[in-house]
Amino acid sequence: MPFSHARTVRFADTDAAGVVFFARYLAMCHEAYEEALAVAGLPLARFFADTGLVVPIARSEASYLRPLECGDRLRIEVSPTRLGEHSFALAFTLWKIVPAADPAVANTEKRAAVARTEHVCIDARSRERRPLPDVLAAWVDAG
Amino acid sequence: MPFSHARTVRFADTDAAGVVFFARYLAMCHEAYEEALAVAGLPLARFFADTGLVVPIARSEASYLRPLECGDRLRIEVSPTRLGEHSFALAFTLWKIVPAADPAVANTEKRAAVARTEHVCIDARSRERRPLPDVLAAWVDAG
Amino acid sequence: MPFSHARTVRFADTDAAGVVFFARYLAMCHEAYEEALAVAGLPLARFFADTGLVVPIARSEASYLRPLECGDRLRIEVSPTRLGEHSFALAFTLWKIVPAADPAVANTEKRAAVARTEHVCIDARSRERRPLPDVLAAWVDAG
Amino acid sequence: MPFSHARTVRFADTDAAGVVFFARYLAMCHEAYEEALAVAGLPLARFFADTGLVVPIARSEASYLRPLECGDRLRIEVSPTRLGEHSFALAFTLWKIVPAADPAVANTEKRAAVARTEHVCIDARSRERRPLPDVLAAWVDAG
Repeated sequence: MPFSHARTVRFADTDAAGVVFFARYLAMCHEAYEEALAVAGLPLARFFADTGLVVPIARSEASYLRPLECGDRLRIEVSPTRLGEHSFALAFTLWKIVPAADPAVANTEKRAAVARTEHVCIDARSRERRPLPDVLAAWVDAG
Repeated sequence: MPFSHARTVRFADTDAAGVVFFARYLAMCHEAYEEALAVAGLPLARFFADTGLVVPIARSEASYLRPLECGDRLRIEVSPTRLGEHSFALAFTLWKIVPAADPAVANTEKRAAVARTEHVCIDARSRERRPLPDVLAAWVDAG
Repeated sequence: MPFSHARTVRFADTDAAGVVFFARYLAMCHEAYEEALAVAGLPLARFFADTGLVVPIARSEASYLRPLECGDRLRIEVSPTRLGEHSFALAFTLWKIVPAADPAVANTEKRAAVARTEHVCIDARSRERRPLPDVLAAWVDAG
Repeated sequence: MPFSHARTVRFADTDAAGVVFFARYLAMCHEAYEEALAVAGLPLARFFADTGLVVPIARSEASYLRPLECGDRLRIEVSPTRLGEHSFALAFTLWKIVPAADPAVANTEKRAAVARTEHVCIDARSRERRPLPDVLAAWVDAG
């Protein structure tokens, strides 16, 4: 089962068209990745500091399926996949939670966006490719 | 007791100095205000749409007391005060949660910032001052 | 010849890894699009207000080829292509300007990212598809 | 004469109220400060890397006088003042440029915001106060 991150759309995420600015969907996906790592005991900031490695995003793609408004409640799923010795991909689905009118009935969810990022592990200084460290590889391979 | 909002510092909140960019503290305060209103049954987006009113910020001030890093857990307190017929102020305190080394011991908190914003109720179109609508006035006056 | 937009990387564009956060590349591409429209006499905000139409992004993809630091000078190229009656795509190239050590020698440029967005014209209220208005279609078709 | 920075309001600066989000005014002021330093030969990123010093903002205040829309052209003035051995303040004025209807007539400007930030020089690692380095002190004292 993929990791799920709960997020509420904030006023600063929106733009003058009244809905979330497209690049903010990707920032929200990154938050889900940060939270998934933190829950796995791998906080991103400490990981960078401890290993001297960084895992920048080499590629992103996203399909924006539904507008999102300030106050919307989201559930963001994130699933890692190994790409190679130095790299992995993350698949994201942003679900918009639609509260049921009747509180006795379960909420429904509508898919608001899907996104995918590719990450490459490099040395922070030389920016040369490095194998994923074991703890990160384990998290990726656990899928 | 003031309303409290839990927030984790995200990578996108930080800058190349390694800590949260100063203007992001204010954006995080605004999130606490949005959440306080939502919990009070006054979601900001719907409020604007329903009333034709907006409550832009006329003034802000903030003291930044501690750097914040990606992954830091915060508790943001927000307390409203009435300023006049058309306006109110919000006082914010950002507390950084410092996890205790011993899980049997309670976490401590350190004050990371204090901020204050002043809001004026206006008509969204004419931008003329309007009295706070009753539901908003009630939330403010409940403090 | 594609439209070019000059942009300097700002501190708020960067994150704790010391370089521009990936989603900010896309926001910078959007700025180039806004500027291209403004130069063509089609300012985005007025266009939305005048026509009741919006052209949200349905899809984005980007390859991040080089890290960008605060202070880096960029040239962002944007080229529109028609996709159909209601939609168009934008192709972006972000060039990092590398100042020549010798002021008598021309600066060089290195490709820092390529991106592509797809835009669909819809009615702002009903969110139903609408043909591109003539002025926007003319801008797109002029490529 | 204070340093002036030209800035156009971008879509990503705005929120669902249709105007610039309050914290973005402060981010735009910071850009003017970065540009002023760069023009003075003191690019912020290199300064941090070369000296091991950072000059975080300890306090900010701002008065928001006018709403700003996507496409608005701004002129942001920045003036430094020395506060002490380790610290300085920056005063900002954001002017909104109002194009004259008649192109033969000069544009006018309206004050959209005033802001002030206080900066303290510290060691990036120990976070202890340090005297302003000579080049930065010279820029501040030139006012």
